[in-house]
Amino acid sequence: MRICRFTSGDDPRFGLVDGAGEKIAEITGDPLYTRIELTGETFEVADVRLLAPVIPRSKVVAIGRNYADHAKEMGSELPAEPMMFFIPNTSVCGPGDPVVIPTFAHEISYEAELAVVIGRMCKDVRPEDARSVIFGYTVANDVTARDLQRGDGQWARAKGMDTFTPLGPWIETDLDVSDLRVTSSVDGEPRQDGTTADMVFGVAEIVAHASAAFTLLPGDVLLTGTPAGVGPITPGQRCEVAVEGIGSLSNIFVSADDAANGEG
Amino acid sequence: MRICRFTSGDDPRFGLVDGAGEKIAEITGDPLYTRIELTGETFEVADVRLLAPVIPRSKVVAIGRNYADHAKEMGSELPAEPMMFFIPNTSVCGPGDPVVIPTFAHEISYEAELAVVIGRMCKDVRPEDARSVIFGYTVANDVTARDLQRGDGQWARAKGMDTFTPLGPWIETDLDVSDLRVTSSVDGEPRQDGTTADMVFGVAEIVAHASAAFTLLPGDVLLTGTPAGVGPITPGQRCEVAVEGIGSLSNIFVSADDAANGEG
Repeated sequence: MRICRFTSGDDPRFGLVDGAGEKIAEITGDPLYTRIELTGETFEVADVRLLAPVIPRSKVVAIGRNYADHAKEMGSELPAEPMMFFIPNTSVCGPGDPVVIPTFAHEISYEAELAVVIGRMCKDVRPEDARSVIFGYTVANDVTARDLQRGDGQWARAKGMDTFTPLGPWIETDLDVSDLRVTSSVDGEPRQDGTTADMVFGVAEIVAHASAAFTLLPGDVLLTGTPAGVGPITPGQRCEVAVEGIGSLSNIFVSADDAANGEG
Repeated sequence: MRICRFTSGDDPRFGLVDGAGEKIAEITGDPLYTRIELTGETFEVADVRLLAPVIPRSKVVAIGRNYADHAKEMGSELPAEPMMFFIPNTSVCGPGDPVVIPTFAHEISYEAELAVVIGRMCKDVRPEDARSVIFGYTVANDVTARDLQRGDGQWARAKGMDTFTPLGPWIETDLDVSDLRVTSSVDGEPRQDGTTADMVFGVAEIVAHASAAFTLLPGDVLLTGTPAGVGPITPGQRCEVAVEGIGSLSNIFVSADDAANGEG
């Protein structure tokens, strides 16, 4: 199933998206917490605004340096264990939303990633049980301010500022994630082209490692790292990130000044 | 006012605590979101279980190295700006709750801190306006696994594991925080004894700096750093942290193995 969160002008609704990504069959509530039941109403994807398919109640746990080729391009060693950092729910935005670059951040990069959506409260999950706590998968752009990442030491600002974590376009619940293309492009020019098969730590290991430290709640999101090919993006440019079998997520980048002036 | 969250066996309730810290007058709902109205019911503090006075909806933003003497004891430079990291809401526990040390963490330290509770949604708050977005203050123990802090690079596990952020005993809404004693003791032996007057960045600057990067939501918590005197604590020991004018917060530390066996 593909589950989206959307608005047609009023409160957010949830729906099932067809295989072509064109039609939405509305469901009665958030499928993370309620049984899936159709309301009977249908929409065209083109007629609604897709929202981030999930707003984490607690946290995004992101993994750094999880593709060898990306760790190499950053001049970093491969970690011996998954390297985790937090992103708050206030950083999440949705498909088409502008990524707003604050005036004090100057070196912005995109990072295409497979995102894992947790389906139930869990702790100390064994890798072989990971699938049972996963609700589904979506696409993330783990937008990063490289200058703040270098200067701050801890990555809270570099990775966790408002709008720096676009998620979408929907959650795919049935997916073999062992070998999926992960790509990005800027203004239509290809930038990243990796595969989840090259992850240093796979999804099951990441779920196990994160849940050994933190209770995971329904709606928590795990970001699984980005392949090589990251690079600068500047205000006015558009970045599209995609994961094979899920879909793509496109966001324009704007400066905070332009956003304040309504030009975003 | 002193506002507590407590249980007498059923769902969490909120109440006003008297100056002696002995009596609770129950109020109708969470004062972060509703007007304060007494229900007429009263309780003795001794007869109820105090809970963490707030569970952040979004995040704890914590500040590292914010007392010169503590930065020195850690062999660290003073940061030029407040150094921020995130702690998730799943790390928060309350007065009297056991702090559970996972089997893979071996070098645990307490850190007594003044905690700031945000009262309304805000972004880009000027230092001179900080007081208007602050709901009140409580006490925090920013429990840290030093071995993970050194080894992981990012401090997600070191600072953000389940139960590593005791908060309490209640929120004091009226307080001049410019010069308050911040203390800790382990099994009754004094360890830290600092004053908020020695913070490198004061509360108003921290609110401004955090809100320049992140939208703050009602119930978000800012931890303001810890003075010198941190040190090891081991399973079976009890740590009490206190901030003058608020109160004290006491937690026993237990190993995950003991907690699993019900000995916590």
